[in-house]
Amino acid sequence: MTDDPTGSDDRPNEARTDDRTGEKLVELAKRRGYFFQSAGAYGGVGGFYTFGPQGAALKQNVEDAWRERFAVAEGNVEVDAPTIMPEPVFEASGHLDTFDDMLVECPDCGESHRADHVVEDETEYEDAEGLPIPEVEEIVAEYELVCPTCGAGLAGQAVEDFNLMFATNIGPGDAQPGYLRPETAQGIFVEFPRLKEYARNQLPFGVTQIGRAYRNEISPRRSIIRTREFTQAELELFIDPETDEPDLASVTDVDLTLYPASEQERDDGDLVETTVGAAVDDGTLQPWIAYYLGVAREWYASLGVDMERFRFRQHLAGERSHYASDCWDAEAELDGNWIELAGFSDRGDYDLSKHDAHSEDRYSIFQPYDEPRTVERTVVDPDMSYLGPEFGADADRVVEALETKAERDRAAFESAADTAAERSSGDDSEPRDGESVEIDLDGETHEIPVEKTGFAVEEQTESGEHLIPHVIEPSFGVDRLVYTVCHHAYREDEVDGEERTYLALDPEIAPTFVGVFPLQSDDALESEAREIASELRAAGLSVTYDDSGNIGRRYRRQDEVGTPFCVTVDFETIENDPATVTVRERDSTAQTRVAVADLPETLSALRAGDLAFDELEG
Amino acid sequence: MTDDPTGSDDRPNEARTDDRTGEKLVELAKRRGYFFQSAGAYGGVGGFYTFGPQGAALKQNVEDAWRERFAVAEGNVEVDAPTIMPEPVFEASGHLDTFDDMLVECPDCGESHRADHVVEDETEYEDAEGLPIPEVEEIVAEYELVCPTCGAGLAGQAVEDFNLMFATNIGPGDAQPGYLRPETAQGIFVEFPRLKEYARNQLPFGVTQIGRAYRNEISPRRSIIRTREFTQAELELFIDPETDEPDLASVTDVDLTLYPASEQERDDGDLVETTVGAAVDDGTLQPWIAYYLGVAREWYASLGVDMERFRFRQHLAGERSHYASDCWDAEAELDGNWIELAGFSDRGDYDLSKHDAHSEDRYSIFQPYDEPRTVERTVVDPDMSYLGPEFGADADRVVEALETKAERDRAAFESAADTAAERSSGDDSEPRDGESVEIDLDGETHEIPVEKTGFAVEEQTESGEHLIPHVIEPSFGVDRLVYTVCHHAYREDEVDGEERTYLALDPEIAPTFVGVFPLQSDDALESEAREIASELRAAGLSVTYDDSGNIGRRYRRQDEVGTPFCVTVDFETIENDPATVTVRERDSTAQTRVAVADLPETLSALRAGDLAFDELEG
Repeated sequence: MTDDPTGSDDRPNEARTDDRTGEKLVELAKRRGYFFQSAGAYGGVGGFYTFGPQGAALKQNVEDAWRERFAVAEGNVEVDAPTIMPEPVFEASGHLDTFDDMLVECPDCGESHRADHVVEDETEYEDAEGLPIPEVEEIVAEYELVCPTCGAGLAGQAVEDFNLMFATNIGPGDAQPGYLRPETAQGIFVEFPRLKEYARNQLPFGVTQIGRAYRNEISPRRSIIRTREFTQAELELFIDPETDEPDLASVTDVDLTLYPASEQERDDGDLVETTVGAAVDDGTLQPWIAYYLGVAREWYASLGVDMERFRFRQHLAGERSHYASDCWDAEAELDGNWIELAGFSDRGDYDLSKHDAHSEDRYSIFQPYDEPRTVERTVVDPDMSYLGPEFGADADRVVEALETKAERDRAAFESAADTAAERSSGDDSEPRDGESVEIDLDGETHEIPVEKTGFAVEEQTESGEHLIPHVIEPSFGVDRLVYTVCHHAYREDEVDGEERTYLALDPEIAPTFVGVFPLQSDDALESEAREIASELRAAGLSVTYDDSGNIGRRYRRQDEVGTPFCVTVDFETIENDPATVTVRERDSTAQTRVAVADLPETLSALRAGDLAFDELEG
Repeated sequence: MTDDPTGSDDRPNEARTDDRTGEKLVELAKRRGYFFQSAGAYGGVGGFYTFGPQGAALKQNVEDAWRERFAVAEGNVEVDAPTIMPEPVFEASGHLDTFDDMLVECPDCGESHRADHVVEDETEYEDAEGLPIPEVEEIVAEYELVCPTCGAGLAGQAVEDFNLMFATNIGPGDAQPGYLRPETAQGIFVEFPRLKEYARNQLPFGVTQIGRAYRNEISPRRSIIRTREFTQAELELFIDPETDEPDLASVTDVDLTLYPASEQERDDGDLVETTVGAAVDDGTLQPWIAYYLGVAREWYASLGVDMERFRFRQHLAGERSHYASDCWDAEAELDGNWIELAGFSDRGDYDLSKHDAHSEDRYSIFQPYDEPRTVERTVVDPDMSYLGPEFGADADRVVEALETKAERDRAAFESAADTAAERSSGDDSEPRDGESVEIDLDGETHEIPVEKTGFAVEEQTESGEHLIPHVIEPSFGVDRLVYTVCHHAYREDEVDGEERTYLALDPEIAPTFVGVFPLQSDDALESEAREIASELRAAGLSVTYDDSGNIGRRYRRQDEVGTPFCVTVDFETIENDPATVTVRERDSTAQTRVAVADLPETLSALRAGDLAFDELEG
């Protein structure tokens, strides 16, 4: 199973509509420098996309906004780890064994497909990913399923596990296998022994990372939604599950649209409209997940994701990743399909326990008690001069078995010792049955006289305990969010009798905030416009200057790019005192005149949302 | 040869000193969360480093500063391309064939070494990388060189080319080889056909990218100086070499310390102190390279690189990368070694020509003439009823040969045609020798009567020409710069009789700008300090709050982290009106009291450099 927070399944679970916004967006994205398939000159290669100038700037703005909210505002730190990691890390994390998809190859055209997708698309099975391989092979045969590419029959073809990690070799030769990380998270987990020092061993603490992750998808699809190389923004919050609690009060009234597993399993299941506080109170959400759903919901809304096409869906038990004990996805609706934007997982102590067991370092935190505690500990100190002759080479294993039994079944030793004590007051005959403890060795039961075990109960003073923290993980896909923000902002209308396309991007994340134009080709106008552009840049705004083509065409160009405002310098500008320019708003195409001297302040206020365009005097 | 801008050779070309700053820095970097070898819990793997909280923040600040200077201020755009690219890209770029280092494996311990380094370290050869492999093998044998790890003899061991790209497979099976890009540049070059559209086919234009690059070094070394995965910040400026000129006036007076190839080749060669303007005037530098050396010099100085330990060194002819026609490195001195920080290359039209030839797209820009020009073009239109019977299956190749000859040797056709014209006035006998043109086919010469070639000279009107732009490339290594900035900022002194270590980082890039402390454990002090910390965060400053340990220890901790200022809340703060706090400067450890109300403004001014600490009233 490979489903997890940001790379996971984006297959529709509702009927497709005939909305073609996605197609039109992909075309606009290529034309206007948002994103396009890489290496097109060489025929392209599936699942790799390049962000052009606008897309890279939008992506950067989204990452900065994430950093501000999930690192800075939450008081978490950020790290930057390599994307190539050595094999032992993924042996421990479980990715080497279980990060697979089911692959079936067409015997005719040779194309590879995800077997579970072929089954889901053509049969009534809804969760084929959770089925064992032999069963999937049987279904393929029984339903006479065919290759989606060429139509050849797939019955009898082997279905195989295909590991989704990109493999490479580190250094000369193949002695040291390495993999491109399938999630940024492992770069945090594996360094926990050091990170806990920076946090001075105090829980809770959170570590974030924004960076590339890689999955060698069998069938990449749908533009930048399911790619083979993508950007994740992940927060790993390390907590003591017994004592640490989130700041629920700060988000308790945030509205949530939930789709719990219980509703998904019902025939007439439905979305649940609730709030963070209510969902915790009625047990739908555990507190930490609830907290981050609340924070994420507000954050997504602030970026312009349409909350009418947004929900949180709980993973079904069979759908969860190998490390997750609970998981909710943030999902957005695009053209009738729900796609995953982020995952919120309770990873428990899975990852740190695995690394603790596989590596040489300790992945626990020493939690001191308020006061030292006195505890009783059972000890054994067996008489080897007895065990040796009796058990030979197995004597050591008998000692181990005694230690374990003393820890788990102290009463057996104590009762045997009592019996022995009664008898031995003046009686030094051989120990009897009731004076022995039983141990199992290779399925056989042996009796060991309690007096030969050296059993004792000792009092020890302990100042604290070693705790392996639990991990709460909000994990965001950046590329998908860039796509969704553009998709939800895609608009078509009519202006002056002509069709117009524009992206109604939020001014805070729009890659270009303002276009500055001279009204027409004229030295004085151009010089004044360039000067204004440079002043606005100095004020920290993202500015484009454009003097090519007629003014209507330049407006349309910026509309498609999603530039919220355009400033036009005309002859009034250079003749009037004080000088004024036209400011045009993208969505309404309304225009108003603003004094040049006020421009930086006015535009900055519009960007920050402190001022609305219709509050400007016309 | 693999030397090029950011991954290149960092071997000393001056004697090592016994300065141990590097060692001490590496230790501090690990302890304080700057950087450390990755996956240490699994024994680590050479050449992969993780940036901890401080290091990641410093790296981010350096990247932001680069973006501001080389993208925004220069009017260039930024893109974000995948790190995995398909094989044909690197076939075209030349990396598949030539991006090699020389490898020799020890027959005893099995360790791999760079053969050229072994030779340079133990013989008088200084540029072994430029020697052919058989010669290197001879030197190894002649000097009886041994394995640097175990001392076994290397004579007779094969020296082999080892390609430094990390290889992987895209999709199931091994049908589609891919490589991790060895430089971010290729992600820009390969998309030039699209990028030129965004630039509306106007030269010059610049495209930047900040991202990971990968080199599977045989022997990674020296912390984050030579790693296998690193971050580059590259600018590819596309120019018309005939007409485009840099803004030299803006940097003409910038001081430069140069080490030209001519000086390196002289026995008593020396550094040359000059200016940008003077170096262009005397022909030491070409204008574009000179412009970027000037910009870079000022930028490095602003980040705190010590200009007393900084120079620009020209590559020797044998040292240049396969694509570069000229290259200068920015170098910094660390512990007596000069290491490369950036490279400034004239890549000519190498890259775009290669992709133009290998791919299906055009990598040229159409440059319209001011006015259409009339040019003469030779054409042939051979008589196939003659060529067919005469040459059979080779007829098509004969046509091609005629086309090529007409283009290159128009005179041959014209003279044959003149001879034929003289004879044929009234004479219809067979054509004679002088009326034929000669072509070569598989080494054999054939004579074709000129009248059968359909040769003609036509006048054509052309409105412009297709130009393959040249590329000027400033290419920066980010990790090395982070290291250098820390190294040049490393200080030891004595405070109150105790040894102190601190990083004198520039306030503009220091990962933490201010530490806020309560003087001692006290609810009122702690509450006030937390409030101040949160106000300073709201003012956009990077703040750390610390209340653990005595105040001296907290100062030392921030000194090591390189935090420029600390604010301490004491009982005066909560008793006095107006409330004041102590502000302490890291480098001088001087303290002064500042009103709490003025703190955000005062600290912001200190950060921006608008105010010096000793201007504050004590």
